[in-house]
Amino acid sequence: MTLLVIGSIAFDTIETPIAKRENILGGSAPYFTYAASFFGPVQMVGVVGEDWPEEYTEMFRKQGIDVSGLEIVPGGKTFRWSGKYRENMNDRDTLDTQLNVLGHFQPKLPEIFRRAQFVFLANGAPSTGLAALEQIQGADLVVADTMDLWINIARNDLDVLLKRIDGLVLNDSEAKMLTGELNTISAAKKILNLGPKFVVVKKGEHGSLFVSEYELYLIPAFPTENVVDPTGAGDSFAGGMMGYIASQGNLESETIKKALVYGTLVAGFCVEGFGLDRYKEINREEIDRRLVLFRKMASF
Amino acid sequence: MTLLVIGSIAFDTIETPIAKRENILGGSAPYFTYAASFFGPVQMVGVVGEDWPEEYTEMFRKQGIDVSGLEIVPGGKTFRWSGKYRENMNDRDTLDTQLNVLGHFQPKLPEIFRRAQFVFLANGAPSTGLAALEQIQGADLVVADTMDLWINIARNDLDVLLKRIDGLVLNDSEAKMLTGELNTISAAKKILNLGPKFVVVKKGEHGSLFVSEYELYLIPAFPTENVVDPTGAGDSFAGGMMGYIASQGNLESETIKKALVYGTLVAGFCVEGFGLDRYKEINREEIDRRLVLFRKMASF
Repeated sequence: MTLLVIGSIAFDTIETPIAKRENILGGSAPYFTYAASFFGPVQMVGVVGEDWPEEYTEMFRKQGIDVSGLEIVPGGKTFRWSGKYRENMNDRDTLDTQLNVLGHFQPKLPEIFRRAQFVFLANGAPSTGLAALEQIQGADLVVADTMDLWINIARNDLDVLLKRIDGLVLNDSEAKMLTGELNTISAAKKILNLGPKFVVVKKGEHGSLFVSEYELYLIPAFPTENVVDPTGAGDSFAGGMMGYIASQGNLESETIKKALVYGTLVAGFCVEGFGLDRYKEINREEIDRRLVLFRKMASF
Repeated sequence: MTLLVIGSIAFDTIETPIAKRENILGGSAPYFTYAASFFGPVQMVGVVGEDWPEEYTEMFRKQGIDVSGLEIVPGGKTFRWSGKYRENMNDRDTLDTQLNVLGHFQPKLPEIFRRAQFVFLANGAPSTGLAALEQIQGADLVVADTMDLWINIARNDLDVLLKRIDGLVLNDSEAKMLTGELNTISAAKKILNLGPKFVVVKKGEHGSLFVSEYELYLIPAFPTENVVDPTGAGDSFAGGMMGYIASQGNLESETIKKALVYGTLVAGFCVEGFGLDRYKEINREEIDRRLVLFRKMASF
């Protein structure tokens, strides 16, 4: 089934204790779409500036990603983010943020995108998500990501958005911040009172969990020693998860667990290289080989 | 097969954000033995003072725990520990420690205990563990727990002990401290160079992992919202794990994973009550009912 994502597109400058890369392709939409594309076709909506290299458009097309929702602003400059990871490769400091064309992003969905059955509102201003939803008719499943920034500065818009989505994806610290709860499970359950029918909590190296009124699923992270660049792991996790759900077209218990597992596996590949580098070396078969390995490690 | 544990026995005073209990039975050996006793017989070695109530000895006996290795020091006072948990129920501050008879503990193993096939050296001074091992002939499996204190103040003894054991159980922060590694998986693997053939890393609410030269297993924690008292969770985890391994008598892949799962489940029960309270309400059947539930949540 069709999977649509609306999200940010960025040129990232990333410094880790080992290396530094400047102006590499990043942002929630590219990570999400690339991760999801291993499981089926994806439609991407986002905005970039005149500095956007045509080769990136080609790269997405070759991966089965429909980029007809990519808006290129004449004279504009693409969103830029710069960050530096600390020794533990988990904590990072943002060094610079230049919103550029993302600051005035008004998603405009091509006609065919408006009938998407599975929709993901990748991390972005809640008002952007709401503007996108206004254009979508009768999706089977709408899932959104959010982050601390929007909980802090756009809580009212976020509360409206929460009532219009089926699922919310966020970090454990953000789930606690959103609810005031100190226990992750309690926080996830409390979010169900704010609107979503299910919540997926990303715990980084500690895995993820899915909570709905009657269900609770837990998956550990894939054990990765060689973390090269953690940027985009959360968006990749969501991409793998939503890509698999869209490919199955249901939310049955086994589908959800396997979607969490696939999200975990693609995120595990993602962090093994800078930006989208590692994705260019793998395919669905390689992901499935790791699934066999992961099942041996973590299924009982 | 026979499982022997040498560890501390304490009277704990515990304060949580909700309640406070004074002088309740605690220490690594009671938590470990009680948790292990759901899977088979356990032999316990430890030291207490003249203030030891006979009813505790009875309680252990009724649970199938052989307490003939319990030394009661005439005129002595049992080890006392006092701690206060913070709001998040994970971090705690030690308010008071009175070693008392534990300060001069020289484990003396009854003759029959010396032929134990499975041995666990619960958290204690590495020299105590070494003294116990001197008395044990040809055990099939020796596993030890350790903690930051011994890494800091008894590193030489600990290094000797590490070369005489088959497996080490410790927290993730302790694994990192012991090796200087920042990644949990890398830290666990590096410990294999110090002597043990396998390492089990306890990650509290984030689960646990087992690492040997060719194996890696990961199990999430059982999702518990109602944490009443986290004291003893790590010792209970080790007890459930070792109890199940001793009941199976092998270290095959499926045994190890299920041992991690059983350790997880008994630790999950443990934290639902103060001290050993919750254990008195459950049995193996109840643990197995939760296993069915846990498999539905986390096995894929």
